[in-house]
Amino acid sequence: MTKTLLEDVKKIFKSTTGTPFLIPTTGTGAWESALTNTLSPGDRVVSFLIGQFSLLWIDQQQRLNFNVDVIESEWGQGANLEVLASKLAADTAHTIKAICIVHNETATGVTNNLAAVRKILDYYRHPALFLVDGVSSICALDFRMDEWGIDVALTGSQKALSLPTGMGIVCASPKALEASKTAKSVRVFFDWKDYLKFYKLGTFWPYTPSIQLLYGLRTALDLIFEEGLDNVIARHGRLAKATRLAVEAWGLKNCTQKEEWYSDTVTAVVVPPYIDSSEIVRRGWKRYNLSLGLGLNKVAGKVFRIGHLGNLNELQLLGCLAGVEMILKDVGYPVKLGSGVAAACAYLQNNIPMIPSRI
Amino acid sequence: MTKTLLEDVKKIFKSTTGTPFLIPTTGTGAWESALTNTLSPGDRVVSFLIGQFSLLWIDQQQRLNFNVDVIESEWGQGANLEVLASKLAADTAHTIKAICIVHNETATGVTNNLAAVRKILDYYRHPALFLVDGVSSICALDFRMDEWGIDVALTGSQKALSLPTGMGIVCASPKALEASKTAKSVRVFFDWKDYLKFYKLGTFWPYTPSIQLLYGLRTALDLIFEEGLDNVIARHGRLAKATRLAVEAWGLKNCTQKEEWYSDTVTAVVVPPYIDSSEIVRRGWKRYNLSLGLGLNKVAGKVFRIGHLGNLNELQLLGCLAGVEMILKDVGYPVKLGSGVAAACAYLQNNIPMIPSRI
Amino acid sequence: MTKTLLEDVKKIFKSTTGTPFLIPTTGTGAWESALTNTLSPGDRVVSFLIGQFSLLWIDQQQRLNFNVDVIESEWGQGANLEVLASKLAADTAHTIKAICIVHNETATGVTNNLAAVRKILDYYRHPALFLVDGVSSICALDFRMDEWGIDVALTGSQKALSLPTGMGIVCASPKALEASKTAKSVRVFFDWKDYLKFYKLGTFWPYTPSIQLLYGLRTALDLIFEEGLDNVIARHGRLAKATRLAVEAWGLKNCTQKEEWYSDTVTAVVVPPYIDSSEIVRRGWKRYNLSLGLGLNKVAGKVFRIGHLGNLNELQLLGCLAGVEMILKDVGYPVKLGSGVAAACAYLQNNIPMIPSRI
Amino acid sequence: MTKTLLEDVKKIFKSTTGTPFLIPTTGTGAWESALTNTLSPGDRVVSFLIGQFSLLWIDQQQRLNFNVDVIESEWGQGANLEVLASKLAADTAHTIKAICIVHNETATGVTNNLAAVRKILDYYRHPALFLVDGVSSICALDFRMDEWGIDVALTGSQKALSLPTGMGIVCASPKALEASKTAKSVRVFFDWKDYLKFYKLGTFWPYTPSIQLLYGLRTALDLIFEEGLDNVIARHGRLAKATRLAVEAWGLKNCTQKEEWYSDTVTAVVVPPYIDSSEIVRRGWKRYNLSLGLGLNKVAGKVFRIGHLGNLNELQLLGCLAGVEMILKDVGYPVKLGSGVAAACAYLQNNIPMIPSRI
Repeated sequence: MTKTLLEDVKKIFKSTTGTPFLIPTTGTGAWESALTNTLSPGDRVVSFLIGQFSLLWIDQQQRLNFNVDVIESEWGQGANLEVLASKLAADTAHTIKAICIVHNETATGVTNNLAAVRKILDYYRHPALFLVDGVSSICALDFRMDEWGIDVALTGSQKALSLPTGMGIVCASPKALEASKTAKSVRVFFDWKDYLKFYKLGTFWPYTPSIQLLYGLRTALDLIFEEGLDNVIARHGRLAKATRLAVEAWGLKNCTQKEEWYSDTVTAVVVPPYIDSSEIVRRGWKRYNLSLGLGLNKVAGKVFRIGHLGNLNELQLLGCLAGVEMILKDVGYPVKLGSGVAAACAYLQNNIPMIPSRI
Repeated sequence: MTKTLLEDVKKIFKSTTGTPFLIPTTGTGAWESALTNTLSPGDRVVSFLIGQFSLLWIDQQQRLNFNVDVIESEWGQGANLEVLASKLAADTAHTIKAICIVHNETATGVTNNLAAVRKILDYYRHPALFLVDGVSSICALDFRMDEWGIDVALTGSQKALSLPTGMGIVCASPKALEASKTAKSVRVFFDWKDYLKFYKLGTFWPYTPSIQLLYGLRTALDLIFEEGLDNVIARHGRLAKATRLAVEAWGLKNCTQKEEWYSDTVTAVVVPPYIDSSEIVRRGWKRYNLSLGLGLNKVAGKVFRIGHLGNLNELQLLGCLAGVEMILKDVGYPVKLGSGVAAACAYLQNNIPMIPSRI
Repeated sequence: MTKTLLEDVKKIFKSTTGTPFLIPTTGTGAWESALTNTLSPGDRVVSFLIGQFSLLWIDQQQRLNFNVDVIESEWGQGANLEVLASKLAADTAHTIKAICIVHNETATGVTNNLAAVRKILDYYRHPALFLVDGVSSICALDFRMDEWGIDVALTGSQKALSLPTGMGIVCASPKALEASKTAKSVRVFFDWKDYLKFYKLGTFWPYTPSIQLLYGLRTALDLIFEEGLDNVIARHGRLAKATRLAVEAWGLKNCTQKEEWYSDTVTAVVVPPYIDSSEIVRRGWKRYNLSLGLGLNKVAGKVFRIGHLGNLNELQLLGCLAGVEMILKDVGYPVKLGSGVAAACAYLQNNIPMIPSRI
Repeated sequence: MTKTLLEDVKKIFKSTTGTPFLIPTTGTGAWESALTNTLSPGDRVVSFLIGQFSLLWIDQQQRLNFNVDVIESEWGQGANLEVLASKLAADTAHTIKAICIVHNETATGVTNNLAAVRKILDYYRHPALFLVDGVSSICALDFRMDEWGIDVALTGSQKALSLPTGMGIVCASPKALEASKTAKSVRVFFDWKDYLKFYKLGTFWPYTPSIQLLYGLRTALDLIFEEGLDNVIARHGRLAKATRLAVEAWGLKNCTQKEEWYSDTVTAVVVPPYIDSSEIVRRGWKRYNLSLGLGLNKVAGKVFRIGHLGNLNELQLLGCLAGVEMILKDVGYPVKLGSGVAAACAYLQNNIPMIPSRI
């Protein structure tokens, strides 16, 4: 089973040349796997800080003793690619060993443009590795590992795959594998070398994997391929668009500052200054059995987040949006009940396709 | 475990004097159990015909060779208790052996007034047995077996208990048990006598029960008692009220003709003559992954049904209502999107209580 | 799914002409379905009494008001076919409407010869229906509905299919279906007519079936067909032979009096008079977590039963046999520990095939 | 739930002063957690090499850049404590920072004497940390973290706890926590610091844990506490003793060279030179559906292993032993069938207690 799983899991990365690793760990461990296998202590890495999850990854990069060159954006903005361009332009000595970017920053609902990053790297013919956190994007957003020349992409079982937690899924390009041969970061549990050794032997595992999650992954992939990966991505687009239309109808602002960065897996909503967004999340939990996301760190109290990721359909989202309307009213925001749902429905009613297996 | 189950299951009937039977069968089998254990072929029974499920029960009564005295109402109306009164008044010889009534007619969304039936029986001091189908009511609507002098009440595992199908739950009053000693209807599988024999022996089962459903029933009862049976009933009231407000906002009519009969577990919605209600159900299934109920028999094509029963909360219902709005638009009904949801939300936002375990 | 299930389930009966019914009930209900659909009150049926389960079926036949002509054998013997022959010979008026026989009497571990019954019926050209309880035989013993001219065969989900309880599986020959058109026994829940009506409509179910058991049946059939039905039957033969060799090695007697009646799904073991077989069962449960069967009714205290049916393999059986040896010693029977297991192993080691999927 | 889990999980270590970490990883990750949190690169550690699992841990220690002082024993022997004593005696400068020992070496079925290690450390008043791999011992063998002065003990979810894989359970003494403050090994995913930070905040998790395994752990602990931890350990002693008696009866040798090292969770059996032990394992898998353990590394082909760990009872073990007998015969070893089972039964029949909940 492992053999076909390793073959099939590459499809969610849109990669044919990558080598996947199914590691019994979390997203944090998958990050560590990506970094320690490709880089050596002291290596200069350029890393974009745009929200809480990129912040945590950068913290990890620093604690792993890389020389992290942080490009910071205001929270709510995407990666500042102009600064990247200037850094690459200046780096004729190729001291930059890797670019680290979170594809979709969950804290602010910002999606970065990976194709543009690749373009810049190519423009400057820069050999830096291109490392991408796809935790809240892969299987939900358009993601093209091979086409965009991504060297390490990673995700976790509990996001768009809708599995329980416990599996970090990492995919390495041939260039990343090559880099792993000389990377000097200390690693054992996360070492690809051990995996590759057992891949060759045909026994696949350097230690006991999470059998139950392998069966789960098999089923998750089957469900995704049955719906069609591109249909899954289109569905996420639909849910996100509907959510944004509701937010607009409520007269609230998206935390994401420009349309080009809008995330199709999570929407961070900015509340007026007289409201504490934590109170919104709290009421969702305590009165409506609704799980919204808190504003994290710099946007704590200022935004709440609506996740629209994974095994979710339109009516479930509409129930959630109706719940948000009631909560907004609860906390004193003058929302017109039904307004967001109406805006979402007006869009969805024109755009939901028939369910193929039921036509 | 069976012992405490038999004790606890009586609570959902609000009975302390009843004897419950957990029969590996369906609602149809539970009906048969109620009838064959208490009546003899040729016995006169008064039975109310108000929709498809009462019709099916009457069909069973006739095929079991009872002399069925049918009191028919227009579909959308409740049981005609005036006719019952006149029949009882006339029956000084007590030829009527039982009154059979469906508490909640699922086909039309009509709830009958059981307390009123008891009042009439008492008024005429009539000894007829009072047999009640509570399949879509017990654990969701106000139901008081002892207080209302019900002799046999029954439900199924797959309705308000939210279990899989396969268990018919029947509760018999002392008077019903007494009647079972002389009832001459042929029965073996459904015979209470065999159950009672094994109750006495303390081994409880005349044949192998559905062990898995017994565990399920234990959990279902635990969940209901944790929420509180009266809170569960209040929640159904809230969901139903919200649904009816949405129907009104859409400008559509409830199939149930008077407010006193409104069902809190299902709402049957009448569509305009130029629309085929089956098309609404079909689109729900084929486009929105929403299961609505078809109009049955006399109301086929004329009504569709929204179920709001069991393990369901307000946001799930609102998602469903939003779906119905889109479907209505799909089939050419001039609905204002968001209108029903808005009406429902306006009511719910003022009436949903905090979740006790999360306060 | 129901459609292919109905097609596939016929294979376990080895029938191509039969019509199956998947009834949400137990074996007792399946009995009732077989009888009430094919017979009328007062009909003469010949029924073999050879143990507790045939006794219970006969009790049902009598309570359903058939005129039961019982052919009794000593417990431990099979059906007395000579008496059957003489009754058929005498019945030139064809007053006998049905022969009822339990294929495998679980209480005594006796398997009846169905082919021989058919031969006798054919010899006398007698048109009686041939009704067979296959609860503890079908899917485990050689069973050929069409070849043996069986008119109704039945089993339950929780026996050789190794599913949870809750489904009675009944298969009716064309002749049985024909009989059902005129049979006058009162029935509704068990009435085939309602099933046949919905078969024609293509919606299949007159009332809500046990969905979860339909999925279970699908899986159970898949597992059986993967192993191969004849291999499954051979495995039961192997397990039974090993058990009998162990019993012999212990110096104990099989309750089944002749080899021709030996059951391949259960072995009833006779204990010496100074031992109470209930004590053996009790100790199995209380000390070894082993479920043995009690001696029932006439053989209470005299036999205990070892079930070897369903999803069971050789090593599991050997663990059970080792447990029985320890229990026998516990209760004072002078068993040589290891003797039964040795005898079973000597046979099994020469007869277990390789597991095809692992060769 | 996490709070009571963290409290209760300490009981399986027999520790009141330890701090547990429930890490979404495997045993290999738990090793890494123990080492990197307490030691710095270049630190001298004394490590015992007695089989494949200690070998792998040592490999990890070396790759993590510790200065590993290996004390090797012949495979089948326990840790050479005399060499440890002489090293500690010589180490007056306290250059040895930690002693690393595998409590139970799964490859050879050897259990080391942890109390004796503590005695030697105390005798020399040596401050080295005492790190113990308890993967195949904790919850099955006598283990006393506090009494034996163990500084880090670790296990995995999939061994004696009988859970799925995916959780490394690590317990750190106050001294180990103190050491973690200055340990310079690079770590992020495995860093206790992040856990301790969230313990203080009361939110417990630095990243998403395996929720499903937390529920599983709750149930596993409940089952163990219900049986009684000491009863669980006694059961493992019983199963192991029975296994060794069977091995002896077969005329085969235990790979473990002295009784003092006998493992109660796994028995490695030495086969005669003319037999390839891999063939035994292969036949178990291919013919008897029995999973035996291969001989690993130095003992490949020479031993096979019988695991008797976790949720296993006596009859299941006896089935396994009967299977081994047949396999031995299959591969040409002149075993007397039943001999091992008889020896095991003779012991077990005198030593199995009644099941408390069923008395």
